[in-house]
Amino acid sequence: MNLPAYDALLNTFTRLYRYQHLGSIVGWDQAAMMPPKGNAARGAALAELDVLMHQTLTDPALPDLLARAGEEALDAQQAANLREMRRDWKMANLLPARLVEAKSLAASRCEHAWRTQRAENDWPGFLANFQDVVKFAREEAQCLAQDTGVSHYEALMDKFEPGARSADIDVIFGEVKTWLPGLISSVREKQAGQTLLAAQGPFAIEKQRALGLELMGLLGFDFSAGRLDLSTHPFCGGVPEDVRITTRYNEDDFMRSLMGIVHETGHARYEQNLPRDSVHLPLGRARSMGIHESQSLSFEMQIGRNPAFLALISPLLKKHLGEQAAFDARNLAGLFTRVKPGFIRVDADELSYPAHIILRYEIERALIDGEIEACDIPALWDEKMLHSLGLDTRGDFRNGCLQDIHWPTGMFGYFPSYTLGAMYAAQYFASIRKAQPDFETRMAAGDLSPLFNWLSSHIWQQASRWETPELVQRATGEALNPGHLRRHLEQRYLGA
Amino acid sequence: MNLPAYDALLNTFTRLYRYQHLGSIVGWDQAAMMPPKGNAARGAALAELDVLMHQTLTDPALPDLLARAGEEALDAQQAANLREMRRDWKMANLLPARLVEAKSLAASRCEHAWRTQRAENDWPGFLANFQDVVKFAREEAQCLAQDTGVSHYEALMDKFEPGARSADIDVIFGEVKTWLPGLISSVREKQAGQTLLAAQGPFAIEKQRALGLELMGLLGFDFSAGRLDLSTHPFCGGVPEDVRITTRYNEDDFMRSLMGIVHETGHARYEQNLPRDSVHLPLGRARSMGIHESQSLSFEMQIGRNPAFLALISPLLKKHLGEQAAFDARNLAGLFTRVKPGFIRVDADELSYPAHIILRYEIERALIDGEIEACDIPALWDEKMLHSLGLDTRGDFRNGCLQDIHWPTGMFGYFPSYTLGAMYAAQYFASIRKAQPDFETRMAAGDLSPLFNWLSSHIWQQASRWETPELVQRATGEALNPGHLRRHLEQRYLGA
Repeated sequence: MNLPAYDALLNTFTRLYRYQHLGSIVGWDQAAMMPPKGNAARGAALAELDVLMHQTLTDPALPDLLARAGEEALDAQQAANLREMRRDWKMANLLPARLVEAKSLAASRCEHAWRTQRAENDWPGFLANFQDVVKFAREEAQCLAQDTGVSHYEALMDKFEPGARSADIDVIFGEVKTWLPGLISSVREKQAGQTLLAAQGPFAIEKQRALGLELMGLLGFDFSAGRLDLSTHPFCGGVPEDVRITTRYNEDDFMRSLMGIVHETGHARYEQNLPRDSVHLPLGRARSMGIHESQSLSFEMQIGRNPAFLALISPLLKKHLGEQAAFDARNLAGLFTRVKPGFIRVDADELSYPAHIILRYEIERALIDGEIEACDIPALWDEKMLHSLGLDTRGDFRNGCLQDIHWPTGMFGYFPSYTLGAMYAAQYFASIRKAQPDFETRMAAGDLSPLFNWLSSHIWQQASRWETPELVQRATGEALNPGHLRRHLEQRYLGA
Repeated sequence: MNLPAYDALLNTFTRLYRYQHLGSIVGWDQAAMMPPKGNAARGAALAELDVLMHQTLTDPALPDLLARAGEEALDAQQAANLREMRRDWKMANLLPARLVEAKSLAASRCEHAWRTQRAENDWPGFLANFQDVVKFAREEAQCLAQDTGVSHYEALMDKFEPGARSADIDVIFGEVKTWLPGLISSVREKQAGQTLLAAQGPFAIEKQRALGLELMGLLGFDFSAGRLDLSTHPFCGGVPEDVRITTRYNEDDFMRSLMGIVHETGHARYEQNLPRDSVHLPLGRARSMGIHESQSLSFEMQIGRNPAFLALISPLLKKHLGEQAAFDARNLAGLFTRVKPGFIRVDADELSYPAHIILRYEIERALIDGEIEACDIPALWDEKMLHSLGLDTRGDFRNGCLQDIHWPTGMFGYFPSYTLGAMYAAQYFASIRKAQPDFETRMAAGDLSPLFNWLSSHIWQQASRWETPELVQRATGEALNPGHLRRHLEQRYLGA
C-alpha cells in the first residue's frame, strides 16, 4: 500500500519518540542522580529539548501531511495512530514556543528549590518561584482552551486524561463526597475494637530495598529492562524499553516504601508491556494518566492490599525484615487496611485517598480558573483538610500543600487521574472476579498470571488503540461506573 | 558593541551546548546505569541527537554568519571563540548526515555487545560488529582529510588533538622507543633487589569506595557538582556543571581502583574549573584530549605516585582498608612505582604505559590508513606485545586487543593523547618544581593548593583560549619537550 503522507508522519513521530527518550532519561537523572549544582544547566538543556519537540510538531509541513494522510487508505490501527498524531499536533500548535521554554525553565527552577524548601517548611520561599509556574500554567491553559469551549482547567486536565470534563468529575467526586465520610467513620468505629501488632523497626534501608526488589520480581518487573532507585518523590520514569521506578525509605516504617514500590511496579508493567511493534508511535503509548493510575492502583490497592496477596508475601517480609508476629498474614492484612486519616497523600490508606485527591482537585481547578491565587492555597488547604479528614495542618506546609511534586512542576490537572484510576481499577477487578472467581485462591498460592494476563490483553496491549471510554467499555463491558469502587471499599472494609 | 552575526552564532552554539548536555548525561547513563534491553532504543536516540547536532552545524545560514562575524569588531576572546566555532563548523560540514547516523548506531551496537564479548574472550563475535565501526571510521577519515593534505589517520587524530601530525608523533614515539626498553630493564634490575610488602586483601568494595570518595575530596572534587559511579570501563563524563566519573573495583587489588579514581579526578577538576562565563561556548571547552590527559596524568602520575602524596594518604588507606604495614608510606611508594609489564593498559605502571600507547598507535594508524584490516589486529597485537613488553598474549583477546573501549566506539586517533598528556604533565611539573621547589614538602603536609593553583591558572581557566602549542608555551615557557618525561622517569625510578 502506498502511503506517502502517512509514512512521512511516521518518520517525524519516530524522531519525536527519540527526543522524548532523551528527555525521559535526563529527567529521571535530574530526580534520582543529579547533584544540586547541575540544575541550572539541566533546566536549560531540558527547556531546549522542549522547544525542539515543539518546533518539530509545529513544522509548517505537518498540516498538509496530516490532511493528506487522512485521505490515504489507512487500516484501523493506522487511523488510530493518525488520530493520536493529530491530537499531539493540535496541542503543540496552540502553544507559542516562548511559552514552552519559559514554562519548562520555571518548572525546573521551582521543583529543584522545592526539594529543600519542603524540608525546611518554607512556603514563602516556595511561593516566589511557584507564582511563575502558575502564571505560565494559566497562559498554557488559555492557549489550549481557545476555540474549544472547555474551561481553562479542563484544557489542562485534557493533557492527562483526554476528553475528561470538570462537569463529569464534579458529579463523580460529588457523589463520592456523599458516602465517603460516613464510610470512613463506620470503618474507624469497626476497627477501633481490633487489636493489631505493630511491626518493630528499625528496618534497615538495604533490607527494605532487597524486599522491594523481590516483590518487583514477583509482580513481573523485567530487570533487564528497568531499574529501582531513590528519589525525593517516588515516580515511574524512563522509556518503555528501560523503565525507571524510584522509591524512598523510612527506617521506622517499612509499609510506605513497600506499597510505593508495588504502586510504581504497576506503572512499570504497563510501560514494559506496551506493544513492541508500535511503542515508538503515538498509537503505542499508554492511553492516559487515568488509565496509567488504574494500573498502579490495580497493583497497590486491588492486588497489594488484598489479604490473599499479603498472605503470599508474609514469608518474604519475615525473610527480609526478620521474624515478627506482626508479619503474620492476618495481621499484615489488618495493617495494610487500617484506616487512619493522615497528612500525606502517598502514604494514605485506601479510604482516605480519594479525600486527598478531591481536595487537590478543588484547589487547583479554582487556581487555574482564576478564582483564587497561589497565596490563597495554604488557608484553603487547612480548611479542606479539617473538613474532609479532621486534620489540623495550619503552619505545617511540609506535610500540607508542599508535599506533592505535581504543583512545583506545573502538572495541574493530573490529580483527578488518581481517583479515576482507582475507579477503573475497581471496575477491572469486578470483571476479573466475575470471569475468574478463584483468582484470590490462585493469588495466595503464588499464581498471579490470571491477573497479569487480563491486564495485558485488555489494557497493556491495547495502548492508545481506543480512546479511554471505548477502552474501558471493551475491557469491562460498561462505561466508567464509580459504583464499583464504592462496592469494593464497602466489601473490603465492612465485609458488606 | 553591535555584533549581530557573532551574537547569532552565540545562540546557535549555546543551543548545541545544551544538546551536548543531553547526549553526555544519556551517554553516561548508557555506560553506568542502563539495563541491557534498553540499548537499541538508546542507540537510536543518541544517533538521532548526533544527526540533530550535525544538522545544526550544517545549517545553510552558518557560512554567511561565520564570514560576517569575522568582519565584526571582535575582541581577542571573541576572536578565539570564532576560531573554535569555525573548526566545529568545518568538521561537521565535511561529513554527510547519513554517515553521522550510521557511525553512531554502529558504535552503540558494537560497544554494547563488546561488554559481554570481552568477558567471553569472543574475538570473532566482536569482529562481526567491529568491521562496520572500522568501515565508517575510514569513511569519516576520508571525508575529514579531503582537501587538507593530511593522512586519513591524522584527520581522525585531529578531532582529539587539533593540529597533531603523524610525522611529529612518529618522531616523538620513535625517540621514546630508543630509551624506554633500556630504562625498563634497568629499573626492573634495580627493583629486583627490593623487598616490598604486598597488601593483604580482600578489600571490600564499599571500603574501597569510601576511600575513593575521601581521596576525591582531598583532590578537590566538588561533590555538589558531580558523582562517582561504577562502569565496565572507567571514564569521566557528564558536563562541566555536573561531572560524572566512574571506576570499577577488584576485591583482590585496591591499587587499580584507587589510581583509576585519582586519574579520573584529574579529568574532573579540569571540567569543573573551566571558566564559568564561557563554559557553554567553544571558547570555554577543554582544549584537547592531549591536554585533558595531561590533567588526569598530572593527578595519577605526577601527584598520585609521588612519595610525598603517598605519605599523605597512607593514614587514609589504613583508616579505610585496615592497619597493615603494607600501607606504610615507604612501602606504598614502592608498590605504586613497582615496574612490572602487564597486559592491561589502564593498570600499567608508569614506565610500561607508553609502550601500551605506542603499540595501539601503530596498529590503529595502519588500520585507518588501510595498510591492515580489522582481522589482522590480534596477530599484530601479539607480535608487538611480545616485542615491546615481552608478554605472550596469543588467544587472550580479553586481556589483549579487546581490553579498551576506544576501538569498539570508533575513537580511533585518541590513544596518542595519553602519552602526549604524560609528556605535557612532566613538563608542567618541571615548571612547578622550578617555581616552587618546596611543593613536595607542602604536599606531604596536606597542602595541594600550590599545584591546583598552578593548573587552574595555566590550564583550567585558559580552556580553549589558545591553540595547544601556545597554551603549553605560555604555561611552561617552551614548546612540547618530551625530554621532561624522560628526566622525570629517570629521576623517579633510578634516582638519576
